[in-house]
Amino acid sequence: MNIVVQKYGGSSVSSTEKIKLIAKNIIKRKNKNSKIVVVVSAMGDTTDDYIKLAKDITDTPSKRELDVLMSTGEMISASLLAMTLDSLGCSSISYSAYQLDIQTSGLHGKSHIDDINVEKIQRSLEQGKVVIVTGFQGVNDDGDITTLGRGGSDTSAVALAVKLNARCEIYTDVDGIYSTDPRKYKYARKLNEIEYEEMLELASLGAQVMHSRSIELAQKYDVEVYVGLTCSNIVGTYIRGGNNMKLEDKIITGIATSDDDVSITIKELCETQVCGLFEDIAIKGISVDMISQTAPINKRISVSFTIPKEELSECKSIVSRYSKDEDLVIDDNITKFSLVGLGMKNTAGVASKVFKIFKENNIKIKLITTSEIRITCAISYDDKQEAINRICKEFNL
Amino acid sequence: MNIVVQKYGGSSVSSTEKIKLIAKNIIKRKNKNSKIVVVVSAMGDTTDDYIKLAKDITDTPSKRELDVLMSTGEMISASLLAMTLDSLGCSSISYSAYQLDIQTSGLHGKSHIDDINVEKIQRSLEQGKVVIVTGFQGVNDDGDITTLGRGGSDTSAVALAVKLNARCEIYTDVDGIYSTDPRKYKYARKLNEIEYEEMLELASLGAQVMHSRSIELAQKYDVEVYVGLTCSNIVGTYIRGGNNMKLEDKIITGIATSDDDVSITIKELCETQVCGLFEDIAIKGISVDMISQTAPINKRISVSFTIPKEELSECKSIVSRYSKDEDLVIDDNITKFSLVGLGMKNTAGVASKVFKIFKENNIKIKLITTSEIRITCAISYDDKQEAINRICKEFNL
Repeated sequence: MNIVVQKYGGSSVSSTEKIKLIAKNIIKRKNKNSKIVVVVSAMGDTTDDYIKLAKDITDTPSKRELDVLMSTGEMISASLLAMTLDSLGCSSISYSAYQLDIQTSGLHGKSHIDDINVEKIQRSLEQGKVVIVTGFQGVNDDGDITTLGRGGSDTSAVALAVKLNARCEIYTDVDGIYSTDPRKYKYARKLNEIEYEEMLELASLGAQVMHSRSIELAQKYDVEVYVGLTCSNIVGTYIRGGNNMKLEDKIITGIATSDDDVSITIKELCETQVCGLFEDIAIKGISVDMISQTAPINKRISVSFTIPKEELSECKSIVSRYSKDEDLVIDDNITKFSLVGLGMKNTAGVASKVFKIFKENNIKIKLITTSEIRITCAISYDDKQEAINRICKEFNL
Repeated sequence: MNIVVQKYGGSSVSSTEKIKLIAKNIIKRKNKNSKIVVVVSAMGDTTDDYIKLAKDITDTPSKRELDVLMSTGEMISASLLAMTLDSLGCSSISYSAYQLDIQTSGLHGKSHIDDINVEKIQRSLEQGKVVIVTGFQGVNDDGDITTLGRGGSDTSAVALAVKLNARCEIYTDVDGIYSTDPRKYKYARKLNEIEYEEMLELASLGAQVMHSRSIELAQKYDVEVYVGLTCSNIVGTYIRGGNNMKLEDKIITGIATSDDDVSITIKELCETQVCGLFEDIAIKGISVDMISQTAPINKRISVSFTIPKEELSECKSIVSRYSKDEDLVIDDNITKFSLVGLGMKNTAGVASKVFKIFKENNIKIKLITTSEIRITCAISYDDKQEAINRICKEFNL
């Protein structure tokens, strides 16, 4: 019998009514002769509510304790889903990270899964039960509860699929992966399939359908991941390796935008200071994204970089050790705008075409970084819609 | 250095503001050269909210899963308190039942603590940390999360005090133990001290200041328990053994009332049915309290008993296997009214005095049970206030 790992996001379990809907969906699937493992996120806005609660106490809550707080969100939705399945006559059991020994390492709030003991899951599946697992969380070597970072439930689901040699299905509130966000560009096109690498770039750039680390994991173990709309017959998108793909003759596969970052520019640094600064930031586990540095003038360097908005206050306290206030510029009016496509590898002039389009439309590029298959620009938030419209039209997305 | 176990109830941690208040109180106490272990309940109405959520799904939610849901309440308040202490410069750490291996046995929702591994606590105390423990919960032999029943955090606190050889302090929203509920009888008198046995009778009869099992445990290991108002200098009540007591020359120490029960009367049962009925009820873990049975007429027996209101629907489904609807009377308009006092042991005629007072005031007794130091009557809810006033006056409480 096939094992299927299904993951339901926060919007799919945001009320007892919605939980009843997905329970019925799970039972229907189980009756088609499958063993089902369900990974759940926290209900709706629970995570945001918890962050607000913690911020009520202090701007820099203990990260160990924040993880304890966060981890309860998935325990709540897992137990409610198990109750629902049981009440519908479908035997089920919920397991938390502790019970499955989901071993993690790394910093609180951004831990990585090292291993999962799937014995209990297999035993429960043998007993005909639907197994419900709390996503997003694990336990580290000290026995402390850890979380995997925003969207980490996707990674929990893929990791379980790897360990159980199972199919992986991610159910969410969109019906698949689009070339760009359909809420922002009405002509966006849904993709039937997408290569890991492309999806990885899109995900890490703010296409918030999936947690980027979950794609890395899927790629590493070659697990096919299906992304689709919760409780729907609409066909979604398959994320798979290149060998299985009908390679499409497109330069750009998709566009992603993100408004969650802030840029910091520091003037008048010397080279050793730059090293020290980024080292200090790394120690705190703050993920720096776009970095741009000017050539030294009189041995003084200006450097710009972006970080997630929520880490600004922590980052500021580090930066203030290296720079006076007057040499510091913080810009929170930025949108990261990225074009992604495997086809870029073999096509010259994509960047210059983007520059030209932006210039013709008076869109100012504040920062730019590139990889083999990606171009990312930081632009003003106000220019976002215009940029999406122009680029989609020009590249026929 | 002395170890102090402090327990704060749900009303003391019902908001981040209140958590900040108790954090300051804890720090003040720690600075007086004590090692502090704090046991917390869930914030305010969290437990009720969870029950409502579960009942939204089904009237008889899986008890295993209900325990998972419930256990998150204390994890939330424990992590928030730890964050608060840390933000005030007081190093602290929260532990859940899993992390401390709080071993329990018995049914879900009413488990008993078998043992606690206090190594982690001792290590953290040695490091100068305030240790925060989630009350009310444990883990059973199957590795499932269990809860100890309403008010179980008191029992967690006393159990920790036993294992750590510590002082035990229960902080709540009343300033001590009263001869009767001061909200119901304005002349109620606060007791400076009370004997375990008396407190036990009062607690198990609905004086909701403390979980009755916590008193049993304190009595068994002779741990003195202090009960007082959260963040206040008002002196509360010491619960201790008879040897330390100034024995008071009173027949009745206190009165307790409870409106949480419902009485079930079944007519026309035969003797074997009565046995079977109570056996079936016991298997489901429903706690039957007052039982009254009439002498057989034509070998048929009538039997009345009370159970907690929340277990009525489960109990009904058992009763319906033994009785036709027309032979069944359910009465939810009852108040359990109890008089407790060690002095009753050596004083005759207390019951007859109670009967007389009730009769003179037209208070009908529906059911009655007695022990050596207690008399409990089930009366109409509407008669409760009158009964309290009359009995307090007559017995000079």
